[in-house]
Amino acid sequence: MKIFTFDTTLRDGTQGEAVSFSVEDKLAIAQKLDELGIDYIEGGWPGSNPRDKEFFARARELHLRHARLTAFGSTRFARNRVDQDPNVRQLLEAATPVISIFGKSWDLHTQRALGISQQENLALISETVSYLKSHGKEVIYDAEHFFDGYLSNPDFALRTLEAAKNAGADVLCLCDTNGGTLPGRLTEIFSVVRKRFDGILGIHCHNDSDVATANTVAAVEAGATHVQGCFNGYGERCGNANMCSILANLELKLGHTTIGPEKLTHLTSVARFIAELANLSVRNDQPYVGRSAFAHKGGVHVSAVLKDSATYEHIRPDAVGNRQRVLLSDLSGRSNILYKLKQHGLTDRLDDASHRELLERIKQMEFMGYELEAAEGTFELLVREALHPGLQLFEVVSYEVTSRGAGTKESQTVATVTLKAQDGIHSATANGHGPVNALDLCLRQCLAQLYPSISSVRLTDYKVRVLDTRKGTAAKVRVLVEWSDQRRSWATVGVSDNVLTASWRALLDAIRLELMRLLEKDETLERVVEDYCWGV
Amino acid sequence: MKIFTFDTTLRDGTQGEAVSFSVEDKLAIAQKLDELGIDYIEGGWPGSNPRDKEFFARARELHLRHARLTAFGSTRFARNRVDQDPNVRQLLEAATPVISIFGKSWDLHTQRALGISQQENLALISETVSYLKSHGKEVIYDAEHFFDGYLSNPDFALRTLEAAKNAGADVLCLCDTNGGTLPGRLTEIFSVVRKRFDGILGIHCHNDSDVATANTVAAVEAGATHVQGCFNGYGERCGNANMCSILANLELKLGHTTIGPEKLTHLTSVARFIAELANLSVRNDQPYVGRSAFAHKGGVHVSAVLKDSATYEHIRPDAVGNRQRVLLSDLSGRSNILYKLKQHGLTDRLDDASHRELLERIKQMEFMGYELEAAEGTFELLVREALHPGLQLFEVVSYEVTSRGAGTKESQTVATVTLKAQDGIHSATANGHGPVNALDLCLRQCLAQLYPSISSVRLTDYKVRVLDTRKGTAAKVRVLVEWSDQRRSWATVGVSDNVLTASWRALLDAIRLELMRLLEKDETLERVVEDYCWGV
Repeated sequence: MKIFTFDTTLRDGTQGEAVSFSVEDKLAIAQKLDELGIDYIEGGWPGSNPRDKEFFARARELHLRHARLTAFGSTRFARNRVDQDPNVRQLLEAATPVISIFGKSWDLHTQRALGISQQENLALISETVSYLKSHGKEVIYDAEHFFDGYLSNPDFALRTLEAAKNAGADVLCLCDTNGGTLPGRLTEIFSVVRKRFDGILGIHCHNDSDVATANTVAAVEAGATHVQGCFNGYGERCGNANMCSILANLELKLGHTTIGPEKLTHLTSVARFIAELANLSVRNDQPYVGRSAFAHKGGVHVSAVLKDSATYEHIRPDAVGNRQRVLLSDLSGRSNILYKLKQHGLTDRLDDASHRELLERIKQMEFMGYELEAAEGTFELLVREALHPGLQLFEVVSYEVTSRGAGTKESQTVATVTLKAQDGIHSATANGHGPVNALDLCLRQCLAQLYPSISSVRLTDYKVRVLDTRKGTAAKVRVLVEWSDQRRSWATVGVSDNVLTASWRALLDAIRLELMRLLEKDETLERVVEDYCWGV
Repeated sequence: MKIFTFDTTLRDGTQGEAVSFSVEDKLAIAQKLDELGIDYIEGGWPGSNPRDKEFFARARELHLRHARLTAFGSTRFARNRVDQDPNVRQLLEAATPVISIFGKSWDLHTQRALGISQQENLALISETVSYLKSHGKEVIYDAEHFFDGYLSNPDFALRTLEAAKNAGADVLCLCDTNGGTLPGRLTEIFSVVRKRFDGILGIHCHNDSDVATANTVAAVEAGATHVQGCFNGYGERCGNANMCSILANLELKLGHTTIGPEKLTHLTSVARFIAELANLSVRNDQPYVGRSAFAHKGGVHVSAVLKDSATYEHIRPDAVGNRQRVLLSDLSGRSNILYKLKQHGLTDRLDDASHRELLERIKQMEFMGYELEAAEGTFELLVREALHPGLQLFEVVSYEVTSRGAGTKESQTVATVTLKAQDGIHSATANGHGPVNALDLCLRQCLAQLYPSISSVRLTDYKVRVLDTRKGTAAKVRVLVEWSDQRRSWATVGVSDNVLTASWRALLDAIRLELMRLLEKDETLERVVEDYCWGV
């Protein structure tokens, strides 16, 4: 059956504590959701803040091929006439084909939050819906707190739906606003409403009881044909029902039609795109789209998956655009690497001695606290070095970096590096924005004559993590540096007691890797590395 | 009804990609789970790795008051006699009162993974269960992939349970190993089994379809009285059913007894304790125990919650040891602070000028990229300084730090700091493990004479984040340093183009704060700060 999809990442999703989008972000996400085949995109609440108002003004530039843009707001305020209510006026000014408005279903709210009578509440709902319908809008009525309201006063809750329905609402959407309802009770209440009302019923769930996806699926099984959710489960408190999980469950498990199987293969990339704009990572363990969703670690699982992936995978990962990963970490990172090298036929290119040495180095590094799975650059360098034993690109004779300052003003940082390369000794001194920048500049200056094309790479992120937090400022630290050129990104890692040494090691690895890549393009190796370290 | 709780954080939880515990961690967690009133603690698979074996050896030192320690393993291997199977022998050597073993319920697995006949599979199950029972063990039989197995071949799946039951298994636990089953189907299948078998039935779910908690609850509604899960939903791929959500849902929503309402108030702190040892953060949006689980951001919600918190909270946060937070971020961080100061009656203690200055400083700092909600130490310092305008504890005359090295060897770092304090000029030079450590040592040496009690604070974490990733190594960075004394933890923050300057600023804030705290104990202020920056 066709189930209509209503995405509210841009409205309810932004209520999440860590979620914030600029107007440009919102426009880009709306475009992406349209491409994915989402039916309704709720863009914001024009009456609540200037950013959302601007979004709707600029949304007219969008060329949506499929999705219907929706503005969100409340029923008119109790003291206003509907045609003079500023909130309602701004909803119309947003000029969207669809408007969703929320009204109160719970007597607690009409009394405590609004302070009005039940009769007045019904008037707010029906007048607002009628007024918006008279302006030619498709109207989705969000029955806020419907399930709590029904438990408190079923008759009142049902009458609010009736008011919206009789006034012409196109969809009645039942909201579990506080996220406190479990699927059993939700199904019971939804079924009562399904029997009482024909037409499209929707469902809008929050995850406070950790069952928002299940509640959404349960409502569909009880007759909902309109589902609301947010990508990556963003939203106030514990978030809204996760649209990624909803789409995949409805399509792949229950045989319904939402965005269709072809578009579903873009699910993972859209989830990551939206996370990227939110400046958040997709949770590794997020169902369907997380990096670990099809990752196998335990020995038993790995050996079975290698025989038949259905043994430990509930769907084919490519159905949602994700992929299988074999971690083998229990057998240690060494076996993992061995497995990966073997899988791509590279073990034969390593002679016995360099093979042993590679494993020994990796073992040693892991023992020191290196985490190679997050540092594809350092891993790639190790393999490249093992494939070319004895290759010495340059040697560091010495390095020194000094920062000095007064008070809390910006300090001055100057570094000096001396290298020995094929063509002799090189020294460079540079001022930088901090020690890493200064050392990076020195290294590139020293090497620029010998390798003119070295400087197309830039540092994109720098992360420091304390490995042993019991030792105070003397604790061991791991520095992860992310780099990027036009084509791709990678990370290098350094570990030391000293954050400066750790940074220096990560920096040297990055520079060495760049040189190795310049010296030899090796596409098989690139595939191995990509495969091993994908999507960090 | 009493529902038995079976926690497998220490076994299945460690299959999570990012989850790793030392033996000490596992012992500490087992102790904590026992205190929380968990009935069964699955400690590991002694036959699978030396760490788990060592855990059981050392677990004899634990004094568990309530929980029964459980060792996990598989049925005997097809080619071994049960009394000579190394896996089974190691299970007995673990010397736990309870053993859980898993066997195959899915014909796909017996054929594809084990390569044995259905009849042989039944023999593995029944012989292993009998043998363990004959050694006086309580035996929990985990029917791996039960739901997939039932769909593929219901007769075979039921016969595997029969084999375990007839051999004396105390609990038959049905596992949705691949996490692919939705609640509707799970309930159907569980009900069939419930009708067929008396005694205790258990449920073990994975979250691949984002419904593991709902499935666990559904199974209880269909007659399960034994629930398995992991704290914080750790586990392979998308994780196991989240024990935190299961306990809270069963106790607070369905009226069952698991650990009881008194112990439930420790849920949040135990979840955080376990996350701490896993070196992971509790997800902010994690239901019940996350920092945002009862955080209100939207204006409508905030104003209603201030009138009656039931309007937007599904339970009382203290029932699970969590608490309400009002973010008011829409009104900007300044209003938030103002609101908090006001709420605690501190606005009156600030005169107009220092009030304006405080707001101005905060505004400026936020504009520069400071994030004060994550840096309670820096926020506390700002407020303390505003309460004591003109108080100058010391002035930095100059600081300098140099690191030098050769190759990739550890570099030597030496710092020099000169301060002007009440009693004159102080200089100190120190070697350190890295620049922050060296500068920290210098500052403390300079101040030790004047403030002898300054050194009880230690650095516990150090995080660096690049704020603008488009500028390469010259990007702006934010350094967050976490500190701790015997009583509590706090963080200070510094922002700069230069990681060294940013670290220096965070360090100075920490030292200044320590001094301010020494000079004036201010409990109201401590409460404000705690309230504002709680649990970062």
